[in-house]
Amino acid sequence: MSLTVYRKSHFNAAHRLYRSDWDDEKNNAVFGKCNNPNFHGHNYELEVGVTGTINQETGFLIDIVELKNIIKEEVEDYLDHKNLNLDVPEFKNLNPTMENIAVLIWDKLNAKLLGRFKLSVTLYETPRNFVVYTGN
Amino acid sequence: MSLTVYRKSHFNAAHRLYRSDWDDEKNNAVFGKCNNPNFHGHNYELEVGVTGTINQETGFLIDIVELKNIIKEEVEDYLDHKNLNLDVPEFKNLNPTMENIAVLIWDKLNAKLLGRFKLSVTLYETPRNFVVYTGN
Amino acid sequence: MSLTVYRKSHFNAAHRLYRSDWDDEKNNAVFGKCNNPNFHGHNYELEVGVTGTINQETGFLIDIVELKNIIKEEVEDYLDHKNLNLDVPEFKNLNPTMENIAVLIWDKLNAKLLGRFKLSVTLYETPRNFVVYTGN
Amino acid sequence: MSLTVYRKSHFNAAHRLYRSDWDDEKNNAVFGKCNNPNFHGHNYELEVGVTGTINQETGFLIDIVELKNIIKEEVEDYLDHKNLNLDVPEFKNLNPTMENIAVLIWDKLNAKLLGRFKLSVTLYETPRNFVVYTGN
Amino acid sequence: MSLTVYRKSHFNAAHRLYRSDWDDEKNNAVFGKCNNPNFHGHNYELEVGVTGTINQETGFLIDIVELKNIIKEEVEDYLDHKNLNLDVPEFKNLNPTMENIAVLIWDKLNAKLLGRFKLSVTLYETPRNFVVYTGN
Amino acid sequence: MSLTVYRKSHFNAAHRLYRSDWDDEKNNAVFGKCNNPNFHGHNYELEVGVTGTINQETGFLIDIVELKNIIKEEVEDYLDHKNLNLDVPEFKNLNPTMENIAVLIWDKLNAKLLGRFKLSVTLYETPRNFVVYTGN
Repeated sequence: MSLTVYRKSHFNAAHRLYRSDWDDEKNNAVFGKCNNPNFHGHNYELEVGVTGTINQETGFLIDIVELKNIIKEEVEDYLDHKNLNLDVPEFKNLNPTMENIAVLIWDKLNAKLLGRFKLSVTLYETPRNFVVYTGN
Repeated sequence: MSLTVYRKSHFNAAHRLYRSDWDDEKNNAVFGKCNNPNFHGHNYELEVGVTGTINQETGFLIDIVELKNIIKEEVEDYLDHKNLNLDVPEFKNLNPTMENIAVLIWDKLNAKLLGRFKLSVTLYETPRNFVVYTGN
Repeated sequence: MSLTVYRKSHFNAAHRLYRSDWDDEKNNAVFGKCNNPNFHGHNYELEVGVTGTINQETGFLIDIVELKNIIKEEVEDYLDHKNLNLDVPEFKNLNPTMENIAVLIWDKLNAKLLGRFKLSVTLYETPRNFVVYTGN
Repeated sequence: MSLTVYRKSHFNAAHRLYRSDWDDEKNNAVFGKCNNPNFHGHNYELEVGVTGTINQETGFLIDIVELKNIIKEEVEDYLDHKNLNLDVPEFKNLNPTMENIAVLIWDKLNAKLLGRFKLSVTLYETPRNFVVYTGN
Repeated sequence: MSLTVYRKSHFNAAHRLYRSDWDDEKNNAVFGKCNNPNFHGHNYELEVGVTGTINQETGFLIDIVELKNIIKEEVEDYLDHKNLNLDVPEFKNLNPTMENIAVLIWDKLNAKLLGRFKLSVTLYETPRNFVVYTGN
Repeated sequence: MSLTVYRKSHFNAAHRLYRSDWDDEKNNAVFGKCNNPNFHGHNYELEVGVTGTINQETGFLIDIVELKNIIKEEVEDYLDHKNLNLDVPEFKNLNPTMENIAVLIWDKLNAKLLGRFKLSVTLYETPRNFVVYTGN
């Protein structure tokens, strides 16, 4: 009997989309106003889903407090109130698009969960744009 | 041509998470403030999804009024304004976690739908915590 | 590495559910107040999902501005502020249920995307009723 | 000790904005795509607020079930699944803008409440456009 | 130059509406299913507004972290995961209606804020029912 | 007969809270993680309210398309995808707190509306923190 438990979370960050090996004209053509060299930012809304079976002893799939704490340590403490380009090592040479941020979050959470659950990450960059990554 | 139609619903209930065969210390360690012996409560938000093919005559997968009425009879009338531990027989010896409530709702709706559709149940216990069960 | 990027959109329209080859009694029995001959209407909320792999050069699965423009041209310009029964050719002899509208939107977007991505369409007819179609 | 209790409600309707004493050119200039002669429609979201003092015997300002029933009888039964221009007498010669709909709802509810409470009406025509009327 | 800063918060609780000096018949007639002797519960959503002038040195009306902490200490720690009738002294002989809960929260926050700001409390008992109290 | 019409809007921006005449220790004590020298960012949600009387000829208080365009020109084009500290002249020597941003938006919109309406500005910096300014 398999279920998926979800926990919502939140962080704010600044970022800029561009490639240092492209000139301004090409960066503007591809990334538009997301290429503001002074950065812009977002309230990122996160939904983390873990799939597994119910622990018959407790009735929990996972203790939601444990999941909340893992998300706080791995995601919020790492990304909240940060400049993704300047403060986060993984984005030194990788564009902090919502797609790449979702993959980073999935990788960090999956390493922490040690394969105990199948994992999904849903990341809202704005109320109208979001991405889902399930590790496949 | 397969689609899934969803209907949202709502009920309020009180509950307590604990095991009568554990002592207070263990119940508090595992269930924390959810183990308040006087109970606490939630506004549960429910999304029921039914998957099947379109009836070419009506253009409906299911008459949403029929689905609304089934949810009312099987879920709302059974759980709304109830104490899950004391008023619902299935939870006399089973912890009313959101996982177990979702399974109960799925079982009751599936019995009523007689296998006419593949069924999914999404249950929000709080705006930040929810569970999905699809019967597998 | 496969992800799904979602874009939300919105349109308003009037419609009526009925079959011209049924008499009033049968139309009322099956479609109830949705059969008002003077029409009623909805704010339709749309979520379009496209599944594929990240473009390693840009970090995008799809340029969300391109996706936004495709949705505007194929869906908003075609359905917004329209009477679905009278103004949209596909619904001249087909009931504009949320199921059939979702299939129409999927077909139009899929033709435009030329099979570059796997496509999903989620359509809210009201805040409590919605449908998902993935083309299968 | 004065408080305000709010109840949210919902109805769907079709409408068209135009004046029969203007020609097409002027109607299009002023009302744009809202002037579709075949109508379009909305999911209207309603928030009704009643201001008064707490009944010390019950702890209620108003029995919310009574307020819910008044809104159902005066607003939902009168406007839901209707064509505002054709089915609602007050809009035979009055444009069913969200402003005029809000005033109509306020007038009908206020007549029913017999001045027992100060009344406010908030009406969402779309998720981004809404109006507040307080009878002043 | 006067502004109002709002902070949203959340707590869950169980309650029952009834008067011990009324018999069952009268309690059921007035309070309906809210009179379940085994209690039911809600996710209460809270919006606290403080009105005052901007501190020209910081650009803050109030440090939102201070406001968040005051709400945590005065409201969340006092009401979250509680049975309002049994665990909260103020409701031993007072019905825990959303009106009376809003007044209690206002009184506790106002005492803590020492009259530094004009205060408003908005309390959602369900997504469709809420109350506003401003101390007047 | 006075009503208030509201239009919701949206922009993303980066910012940093600090005073250049304070040392790091004091800036950190007052502004905490909002003082990240590399900036962070938000999705700002805006609600603009205009109060006035209904134009009896059109049934509009204001043409919502006109209001939408004014907000686009005065607010979105000026603040969207910007670094508030570096790209917006008004914040060169003024902290871009949500309070000060709300006042700037109110001033710009009020100048454009030429006193035709009483104006209110509601600005969400996060889903839990927001501010209201009415020009008084």
